[in-house]
Order: sequence, then structure tokens, then C-alpha cells
Amino acid sequence: MQVANRFRLQELQDFSVSVFRRLGCSECNAALGAEVLAESDKRGIDSHGIARLHIYVKWLSRGFAPANPAVQVIRETGSTALVDGGGGLGIMVAPVANQICIKKTQENGTAWVSVRNSNHFGIAGYYTGQATEKNLIAWALSNATSQVAPARSSQPMLGTNPFSVGIPVPGSFPIMIDMATSAVAYGKIEIAQRQKERIPMGWGLDSNGDHTTDPSELGGDQPYSMLPIGSVPDHGVHKGYCLSALTDILSGVLGDSGFGPFGPHFMLPEISPTPLYGKGLGHLFGAFQVEAITDLAEYSDRIQAWISLFRAATPVDPELPVLIPGEPEQAAIADRTANGVPLNPEVVSTLQKISTDLGVDFPG
Amino acid sequence: MQVANRFRLQELQDFSVSVFRRLGCSECNAALGAEVLAESDKRGIDSHGIARLHIYVKWLSRGFAPANPAVQVIRETGSTALVDGGGGLGIMVAPVANQICIKKTQENGTAWVSVRNSNHFGIAGYYTGQATEKNLIAWALSNATSQVAPARSSQPMLGTNPFSVGIPVPGSFPIMIDMATSAVAYGKIEIAQRQKERIPMGWGLDSNGDHTTDPSELGGDQPYSMLPIGSVPDHGVHKGYCLSALTDILSGVLGDSGFGPFGPHFMLPEISPTPLYGKGLGHLFGAFQVEAITDLAEYSDRIQAWISLFRAATPVDPELPVLIPGEPEQAAIADRTANGVPLNPEVVSTLQKISTDLGVDFPG
Repeated sequence: MQVANRFRLQELQDFSVSVFRRLGCSECNAALGAEVLAESDKRGIDSHGIARLHIYVKWLSRGFAPANPAVQVIRETGSTALVDGGGGLGIMVAPVANQICIKKTQENGTAWVSVRNSNHFGIAGYYTGQATEKNLIAWALSNATSQVAPARSSQPMLGTNPFSVGIPVPGSFPIMIDMATSAVAYGKIEIAQRQKERIPMGWGLDSNGDHTTDPSELGGDQPYSMLPIGSVPDHGVHKGYCLSALTDILSGVLGDSGFGPFGPHFMLPEISPTPLYGKGLGHLFGAFQVEAITDLAEYSDRIQAWISLFRAATPVDPELPVLIPGEPEQAAIADRTANGVPLNPEVVSTLQKISTDLGVDFPG
Repeated sequence: MQVANRFRLQELQDFSVSVFRRLGCSECNAALGAEVLAESDKRGIDSHGIARLHIYVKWLSRGFAPANPAVQVIRETGSTALVDGGGGLGIMVAPVANQICIKKTQENGTAWVSVRNSNHFGIAGYYTGQATEKNLIAWALSNATSQVAPARSSQPMLGTNPFSVGIPVPGSFPIMIDMATSAVAYGKIEIAQRQKERIPMGWGLDSNGDHTTDPSELGGDQPYSMLPIGSVPDHGVHKGYCLSALTDILSGVLGDSGFGPFGPHFMLPEISPTPLYGKGLGHLFGAFQVEAITDLAEYSDRIQAWISLFRAATPVDPELPVLIPGEPEQAAIADRTANGVPLNPEVVSTLQKISTDLGVDFPG
């Protein structure tokens, strides 16, 4: 069934479905939410998988989000749509909007779908991965709870705002860019906090707006901020800020969601700020057909050539070859499909608590 | 006429037109190329303006590019196109392709246009700026001569690959993201070389693949590489690499241009590599209508609110307020429209040489 502390992917996904069902979600909504989480665990992005089920449970059980949101298309053309998520969980709202984007792209060659009044949507790469399966080049952006300061500032005005682009490689794994627009994921700061280790300069600013290497200063009740990609002016922090700002504007401002510091608080929805405009978080999905631009078989040769060329680029350390974006996820998929998903004891105990609280069998 | 070493924008633009005409370009091609250069000087991006006229003159006068390229639409749908640039200068090819993208977007709501067999296209922000004037959200990407190493590598596999997104602010200047995907522009390394000053760690690797603070090691005949945004793993260099790789794939691989290390050499076209696939450099233009997604007047309120909110974010140094992307360019436009474009003596002497060589009056 499971090796050591590993759990079969399907068992974990089934558990999430049962939990969502018990909390009143329809079969369809439960399946969508569970699929997004499972895809994260499968790709090795443990921070965004079933380890977060307890947060979604909190949102649903305390009424911060409806179990079955009224997802509605508000405005529409052949190649665009604005979708209102009805305040639902992003992992149930965003897959629906993304499928609208994919369908419109298949019909029209290109499409953009904006989503408002949604919430945390899991890994951005789930959405672009759905599109690359259809040989589409695809974008997925979302804004998020504010933790990141603009360049020159110490005020957390931006979320870690994920930015994903998926590029199909016909017959193989896609090239998958899926990144927070902060220099580092908050999960790495949390690990350093637990292990009482120093962090590198450039991950965050303390309550005085100074760079700190003490992770305990980046959490709790005191003010702090994380930093955009680049961390410091000499390494391009203003460019990281541009990318984060872009994601906030396209996700939040365009479709009328809470933007900047007004996004809801994912971990603590009870302390969410009142937005200046709009409601919830926003997302943007976009795609276009490779075949609308070029012959697919010829493109396939070229993208394979690109991959071979970059894999063979001279490494600084021969032990650390150049990676193709998405390659670490491919390795995780192979491992976890064969051997299951490793869960640490803390995560297992949150799942066991959910199991007890809701009376849903946990596979462990 | 001009204050000190300043020249009127219109005079410089007229000079570029006359130079291109003398080299055999049609009125239309001369006007397009001169407009792209002038827009760069107007925005204060001096490295990409008339200071580079001598390089374009070299391309045309030595036959590396035709004066009047056969720009052709190779493949087309209502919302997409693949354009072959006929080996022309990017500053004459890309404006045509970008207008095709804008027209298709106005007709269909969204569009993407890929360009192959082109060359250096000037500032990416010129293209997105054309689209924001029509209240479109717009992308412009290009690959470039390879100088930048992927994360983990010391081999220059990527160009400084510019990435621009323009976001319209109805009735005002757009929010303009226009950045190289390298940590720093090569122009800043050249300045340090001339002034014999040290550069910060993180701008480039020397011939051994080690970080260097000596700018003389990043040029000349020895191997060297620049670094993507982030510069080092702790500051997100793998994310900068992803962004640069994305730009290379969408600009070069998609439409079949020279990708990775195979882009032509802009400064020294005579030593350009033979590409594995395709010819020249490639670009990608994309756009969608704000109005297809949301009410324009309401959007206008929200984007103005976003700007006000971010301008007021707490600065670390009160002397250095938070900037909105594109704000430095706005300040330059105001200055240069009123007071002319400052040109340094070296640039003036290259222009005087062109004037003498081609028998075209220079305004100085």
C-alpha cells in the first residue's frame, strides 16, 4: 500500500474527494479540487498539495467559501471571457475558467479568460499543464495574499503572485515554467524557522525595512516583507517587482478582484482586509494554438533540438547539469507514480485530524 | 536649436530617415526604422536609439540586410499570423508585424503574431506602446545575440532577450514593463569598462565560469557570460533563466528563427553563427482588448487606484519613492520633448562620420 511514510497518489486524491464531499461539495467540485491538490503532490510541489487540505477545510467548514460556488460567465466574446468565481475556492473555480479558456482557444486559435471573486488556486502549473496536453502554449497567473514589497519599499503590497507558462513538447513532457515572483517561496523561510537556521541575505526585510538573515523576523505578529525575484538592485529586483506587479494587475485589477494588499488572507481568512475594489483573488488564463502559428511536426523537431542543446550547455559544476524548466517536476512524477507520495509526520497528523473530525477514512 | 549637447528629437529622427533613404530604403521603411530609434531616445533609453544608427548603417551598407525586405505573411488565421521578415532589419520588419497583431486584436479581441527571419528590433516597449494607445494589453518579446548563461552554466546560450508588457491607463501614460531578462544591460558593463571601475558581483562570469567584479573580463576575445535576472541561486537566478528561456522559445523556436546561441551577431554580423534551424532573430507580439474583458471606464478607475496605492507604498529611503513601471520613461519623455536629447561626444562623432560618408546633412 505505501512504502515507509509514502502514500499512493490515488488514495490521497480519493481522501480529498471524500473530505470535500463531506463538506457539501458536489461530485464535480470535489473532484476538481482534489485533482489540483493531487497534481501538486505528483509533481513534488509538496507545499501546495494535500499538506494544505486543512486550510481548504477551514475555508469550507467555517463558511469563508461556499461548497458549491455559483461560477458565472459575466462577459464574453468568441476568444475572451470574464468569469465570476462566486467567492469559491480557487481550486474549484479556476479549473472551470481554465477549461473555458482551452475550449475557446481550440475554437478560435487564441483566448484570454479573466477570473474574479475567486481564491487560492493551488499550483499555477496545473492550469498550463491542462493546456499543453492540447498542444497549446498557455499562461496562468494569480495574485495572492500580500507578503512581498515592491522594489525600494518595505511594505508588503504584493503576493508571491505565481506566473506559469506551459510550452508543449508533442509526445513528451511540456516545458513548464511555474514560479512565484518572489525571490524564494515562503515555505523555504518556514523550514529555516523550524530548523533555527540562518537564511541568505535577500529573502526578506525585517520590521525596520532592513535585510535580515534571521528567519524568525519574517513571521509572527511583527511587520516584515519578502522580496521580489532579484532581491537587490544589482541582481535585478526592480525587474522582479515588474513581474510581480504585472501579475497583480492582470489577475486583480483587470477583472476586478482585491488587488495589491487587498487580497484575502489564505491561511487566516478571518483577518482578510477589505478590498478597495472587487472581491477575493483573481486569475488570468491565456492560450494559443501552436498549429495556428507553425507546422506541429516541424515545431516538435525544433523544441526537441532546443531541449537537447540546453541540456548539453557547459555546467559550472559537472555534478549539476543545466535543467530544462519543468525537469525537476518530471523526475518527481516518475518517482511518485511508482513509489507514492512521501508525507511528513506533521502533514499525516493534520490529515488524521481531518479524518477524525469529519468521519472520513484516512488511508494511513 | 539645441541646448549644449542636446539635439531636437525631430531633427535626429529626420537625420535617421535621410540616412536610411540614402541607403536605399523606401520612404515607408526609412520612416519605420527612424521612428523606433527616435522613440527610444525620447524615452531615455539612449543605448537603443540613434547611438546605434551606425550599426544599422553597417548592416545595410555591407549587405547583411536588404534595404527593403520582403515582409510576408506565411500562415494566418483571424487571430494569429506567422510573418517572415525577409532578413530585414528588425526596426523595419517588426513594426509591420506588430501592426498586423494590433489590427487582428481590434477585429478579434485577441491575437498573437510570430515573426521569423528578422533582426534586432530596438526597444521592445516601442511595440507594446503602439498597442496600449488602442487600449490593448500587449506583449512583445525577442531573442537576441547570445551573451547570457542559463542557471548552473557558464556558456552564453541566451540573448539579453527583452520582455515587454504594456498595460493601458486610459487618458494617461501606460504602465510599461520593458526589460532585458539579464540581471543588467550590457551597456552598464561597457560604462564600467570605460571608467575602469569594478562591477557588482552577479553581473557576469569570467572565462573560468567564476563570478567576476572586473568588467574587462566581460568583453573582448575571451569567453565570458552575463547572468539572468537574480544572478545567484539565493536571489532567484533559476527564475530569471526561465524567463529568458521562455523568451527564446517563443521568439526563436516557435516561428523558426535562430534560437539559443544561433542568433545573428548584432554588433558584428560578419561573425554570426550558422543556425541549427531557421534564420535571423525572431519576435512574438500578442495583445488583447481590455474592453473584451471589462468595462473600460471602471477599469480606468481601478488602474488609477493601483497606481496611487503603489506610489504611496512606504519607501525604505524617503528620497527614493516606489516607482510605477514606465515612470522613468515618462520623466524622460517630458524632458526630451521640451529640451531635446542629450548625446555624448562619441555618439555625435559617429553621426558626423555617417553624415560625411553618406553625404547626408547632420543637424549638429
